[in-house]
Amino acid sequence: MKDWKGINYKVIIRVIGFLLVIEGIFMLTGLPFSLYYCEGECFSLLYSGLITMFAGGLLWFSTRKHPKNIGKKEGYVIVSVSWIVISLFGTLPFLFSGAIPNFTNAFFETMSGFTTTGATILTDIESLPKGILFWRSMTQWIGGMGIIVFTVALLPILGIGGMQLYTAEMPGVTKDKLHPRITATAKRLWGIYVLFTVLETVLLMFGGMNLFNALCHTFGTVATGGFSPNNLSIATFSPYIQYVIIVFMILAGTNFTLHYFALHGRFRKVWQSEEFRYFIYLILAGTLIITLALTFSKDGMTFEQAFRSSFFQVVSIITTTGFITDNYLNWPGIVWFLLFLMMFVGGMAGSTGGGIKVLRQLLLLKNSLLELKRLIHPQAIIPVRMNGKVVSQDIIFKVMAFFLIYISFFIFGSIVMSLIGLDVSSAVGASAATLGNIGPGIGMVGPEDNYNFIPYSGKWVLSFLMLVGRLELFTVLILFSPAFWKK
Amino acid sequence: MKDWKGINYKVIIRVIGFLLVIEGIFMLTGLPFSLYYCEGECFSLLYSGLITMFAGGLLWFSTRKHPKNIGKKEGYVIVSVSWIVISLFGTLPFLFSGAIPNFTNAFFETMSGFTTTGATILTDIESLPKGILFWRSMTQWIGGMGIIVFTVALLPILGIGGMQLYTAEMPGVTKDKLHPRITATAKRLWGIYVLFTVLETVLLMFGGMNLFNALCHTFGTVATGGFSPNNLSIATFSPYIQYVIIVFMILAGTNFTLHYFALHGRFRKVWQSEEFRYFIYLILAGTLIITLALTFSKDGMTFEQAFRSSFFQVVSIITTTGFITDNYLNWPGIVWFLLFLMMFVGGMAGSTGGGIKVLRQLLLLKNSLLELKRLIHPQAIIPVRMNGKVVSQDIIFKVMAFFLIYISFFIFGSIVMSLIGLDVSSAVGASAATLGNIGPGIGMVGPEDNYNFIPYSGKWVLSFLMLVGRLELFTVLILFSPAFWKK
Repeated sequence: MKDWKGINYKVIIRVIGFLLVIEGIFMLTGLPFSLYYCEGECFSLLYSGLITMFAGGLLWFSTRKHPKNIGKKEGYVIVSVSWIVISLFGTLPFLFSGAIPNFTNAFFETMSGFTTTGATILTDIESLPKGILFWRSMTQWIGGMGIIVFTVALLPILGIGGMQLYTAEMPGVTKDKLHPRITATAKRLWGIYVLFTVLETVLLMFGGMNLFNALCHTFGTVATGGFSPNNLSIATFSPYIQYVIIVFMILAGTNFTLHYFALHGRFRKVWQSEEFRYFIYLILAGTLIITLALTFSKDGMTFEQAFRSSFFQVVSIITTTGFITDNYLNWPGIVWFLLFLMMFVGGMAGSTGGGIKVLRQLLLLKNSLLELKRLIHPQAIIPVRMNGKVVSQDIIFKVMAFFLIYISFFIFGSIVMSLIGLDVSSAVGASAATLGNIGPGIGMVGPEDNYNFIPYSGKWVLSFLMLVGRLELFTVLILFSPAFWKK
Repeated sequence: MKDWKGINYKVIIRVIGFLLVIEGIFMLTGLPFSLYYCEGECFSLLYSGLITMFAGGLLWFSTRKHPKNIGKKEGYVIVSVSWIVISLFGTLPFLFSGAIPNFTNAFFETMSGFTTTGATILTDIESLPKGILFWRSMTQWIGGMGIIVFTVALLPILGIGGMQLYTAEMPGVTKDKLHPRITATAKRLWGIYVLFTVLETVLLMFGGMNLFNALCHTFGTVATGGFSPNNLSIATFSPYIQYVIIVFMILAGTNFTLHYFALHGRFRKVWQSEEFRYFIYLILAGTLIITLALTFSKDGMTFEQAFRSSFFQVVSIITTTGFITDNYLNWPGIVWFLLFLMMFVGGMAGSTGGGIKVLRQLLLLKNSLLELKRLIHPQAIIPVRMNGKVVSQDIIFKVMAFFLIYISFFIFGSIVMSLIGLDVSSAVGASAATLGNIGPGIGMVGPEDNYNFIPYSGKWVLSFLMLVGRLELFTVLILFSPAFWKK
């Protein structure tokens, strides 16, 4: 295979081979749980891991003599293709163990994990072997790691929908050059990610969870994924555990660069971030309104219960995690409607959260308010400011375009799911919850339901939406543009 | 009263006085119907007309010695305030006759007329005196006339959300200077408006309608209003009459400048308009899909019935008219969902239709498609083109901002209506249908329902949405900006 049309395919294959080897190794980490809880099925993780590593090794060695240049185009191809290939191999444990015998279902579940969505087709989660459930949770954790590299290494070059702004804040990529090399930055952010993982696991075990449950829920939290190995998600756990998870969902939905600053004692810099303040205010406002609504409408719910339920659900949805402590569809209409709208917020830029992102929302809000001023003073140049700095009109332009394309995909997904036969609110819910990488939606894909009943065609469409949403739209869409493949 | 803070209030009062006199005269035109069909109530139109004329005359004469300069700021104030004041006086016939004894209800109905929305609070329309129903329909016709002046005389100066593009096509405002004076242009467009009114009335009477019904339905059509003096709207009329109304809804939703060209035999120029072609394609595509869906899902509906129902409803909603021949909420979910999405299209720019406008949708669509190309070639300048001409980035920027603010208002309206107690789909439907000046929505404000049950607070919010939507958002919003009132 030679360099066809200028794209260096060998390097792409090599990187994907490398990633498959890593994936195989991660699969093997679940083996202890498979063996400890062995219930008839004990070795599917082992076989899957070995096959994945072997396939990866083959790709890696077959492209030994490759030119080492990874350009922008190669970057685009690697990101989308690797997410798909890794999901394909990620289905092996489900298929081998028979936990999810159907390939479409297994692919949906795996893509849902790697995109940190958390939408499931499982009707009885607890009936699955523990080793398989561990792998299911781990896919999210790997996906979260992937997203950190993606945002650190690729977004700075790609300039997608205003994400330049985010990278401008990131050590290693800025003009300030805290750490000039991108890999160094990625490692630092991974360090924080691992730190949070260890911390949350310990805190959950301290609350009475066993290691298996603690690890699985931690994976779901720090990656803002939302898969739980329990049928009732977080509902049956103690308030202590629920609060711990709330805190770590917020941490996971926060820009990891800010954590870096915080760990170095630069708290002022954290609070100076307008995006962070807006993120916190949004969570507080949402929690307050919903707490009040629940207190007045739900008899028999104490104030603490109402507050905890509201706080948990608001954080879970804004950060695009998707853990559940209560069926919000049974709450008053205005409440679940507000929660549905929050599905369009997303975490902060540079977090593991998906969706539109708080940064973009804030820029759009500021710009809309300024638009009136611009009408009154048509000659004046009135720029949007963020953290005291002027944001170029070009960036705002790209952010608006991003938002519009996001909404278009949401509508496209809703229409397709309606055509496939879902009722309108389920169609709308499924589209919003997969595109935003949240998981549970509204209608028949609500917090107490799952995606099992959706026809296969619909599951492929939703898998596509998860991928497109996770990779900031353009990374995937650009591959469909003929211009991309020219020259 | 002197010129306070630089705004010339006297000229504003004088213009509004003038408009009230005109309104009073229009009220009197319904008198023949009041007298002919006299059923106990015969003179409320006379009293209302005289009072309105008297009030207008008073304002007019009290500001005789005024400086004649109408600036941009005065323009803004006149548009919003006159729509409100005219609606206030427009309630008089409803109140005097006792047809709508409640002031809030009467104001909602009148504002709905003058904004050409067509949302009604009436539960039994046919029980009202004919003269009052004539006035109800006429409010729409006056509103349509007002919108023509608004778009011709004010939008060129204001530069709201890309409407500059529309005015660039308009004779009398372009560089080509077909007719250099704006008033001359307005008169020409009014001529077309009156021509359509006469034509449709004759064609409807030809189909067996009496003069009263023909006039009322014509008013509702050419203004894209949608008030019918019949409880069942257009459902009981013959296919011929339904097709006539379809044709005139399309004409009313078309840019009136194109009619001007067509009447001068320049048909090529009409078809050269990308906006027009997109408008027609949208209608055809929508009709085709819905016809197919109805043919397959509804037993006992002939193909012609399915086609006519689909065609009628698609045109009625895209043009923001809101006439009804069938309850689309009984159609398959995907169909009414598509119709709901069409509520966000709106007529062409420069038509009497409301909503976001086809022009803006088309610009946004083109820009979104180009955004990918821009990512691939970040150095190249890749502009949007419309009708072969480059559209500046600045205009696209304003169009995007307009769209975002429109969506924000839609969401704001939905939240407020939910808070007031409507179920989510009714709240969403009411917000979309009033902001877009359509009339019937979904949920409990669907095609067979009305707005009567909504609490008074909700009716005021919806009246505000109608006004904001009708006047291209910014015209109203700018009045809330402190900067507007400075200096």
